[in-house]
Amino acid sequence: MITVLRLDHRLGRDTRITTHVCLTARAFGADKVILSGEHDKHIIESAQKVVENWGGDFEVEYQKAYRPVIKEHKQKGFEIIHLTMYGKHVEDVVPTIRDNNRDKLIIVGGSRVPTDVYEAADWNLSVTNQPHSEVAALAICLHYMMDGSELKTVYNDGKMQIVPNNEHKEVIKNE
Amino acid sequence: MITVLRLDHRLGRDTRITTHVCLTARAFGADKVILSGEHDKHIIESAQKVVENWGGDFEVEYQKAYRPVIKEHKQKGFEIIHLTMYGKHVEDVVPTIRDNNRDKLIIVGGSRVPTDVYEAADWNLSVTNQPHSEVAALAICLHYMMDGSELKTVYNDGKMQIVPNNEHKEVIKNE
Repeated sequence: MITVLRLDHRLGRDTRITTHVCLTARAFGADKVILSGEHDKHIIESAQKVVENWGGDFEVEYQKAYRPVIKEHKQKGFEIIHLTMYGKHVEDVVPTIRDNNRDKLIIVGGSRVPTDVYEAADWNLSVTNQPHSEVAALAICLHYMMDGSELKTVYNDGKMQIVPNNEHKEVIKNE
Repeated sequence: MITVLRLDHRLGRDTRITTHVCLTARAFGADKVILSGEHDKHIIESAQKVVENWGGDFEVEYQKAYRPVIKEHKQKGFEIIHLTMYGKHVEDVVPTIRDNNRDKLIIVGGSRVPTDVYEAADWNLSVTNQPHSEVAALAICLHYMMDGSELKTVYNDGKMQIVPNNEHKEVIKNE
C-alpha cells in the first residue's frame, strides 16, 4: 500500500498543484492521497471523477491536521518517506526499500516544512537537490518505487481508454 | 540542446504550474524554456533567481505565438516531441532517439492542444495514458532523455549547494 500525504493545502493558491499531486499519485501507482490543511471538496470531487472515467480504485481523503496522520501510519507500521530537496537521493534509497514489504507513507510538503516532519520520517528523500516541483518529485519517487511498472498499467474498469498513437487522439469508450 | 516550449500560458491561472514546468525543466537537464501565451515577467524573474542562487546556465525566453517557434525549430533540425496523454509511450520511444545527436524541442501543452501541433510533432508521446500533470510528464520524459544522469548533476557556480542528508537541512554557501 502506498499512501501520499499532502501537507497544509491552501484553498485557491494550491488548488491546481494539489490537483496535480493527486492525479500524479494515481497515475504513478499510489493507492490513496490524504489531503491536510484547508478542506477543498472540488479537488476530491475531481479526483473521483477521474477514477470514474479512467478506472482503478484510487482514493482521496481529507484530514485537517497532518501530525495525527503521520503518527497513526507510523503505528500501523508504514515506512515514512518525506520528499524534500534537502534529502538523500531517491534513486539511491528507494531501490533498497522497494521490496521490504512495508507499506509506505510518502509526505509531500510545501516550502516550509517544520522540523518534526523531518524527524518523524524514516527517510528524507530528494529528487535532485535542486528546487523544482513537488509534482515532479512525487512522479520520480513513485517511478522508482514501482520500478517503472506504473508506465504500463492499464485500467479496464474505466469509461474510457486511450490507444497510444503517434498521430492523433484515439479513445475507446467502454460500454 | 533540449528546449521546452510551454504552450499558451495564462496569467494567474497557470502561474504556479508554469513555474513548476520551468524549474522542472532546469532541474532535469533542459537548457531552455520558451514560454508562449501571456507575458509573465514574474515567472521569468523567478527562474533567473533560481539560476543565480543554484547555478547552471538555464534560460527562460518569451515568444507570444508558439507556431513560429515550432516552425523555426523544425527548420533548424530540432526533433519535435509533443507530450500528450494520447501519445506513444515515452519509455518505448525516448531510448531509441536519445543518442541520435539531434536537438530536441519538447512541447508541453494544456488541456486543448490544436491538431496542427500533433501534426507538426515528430513524436506525440505520453507518460502513462492517464490524465495527470504536464509537470510530471515533463520530469519523466527528461528523466528518460537524460538516462537518469540528471539526478546526479551538481552545479558549482551557484550561491548555495545542498549536502544530501537523511536527518536535517544542510546547505553550503559558496563564496
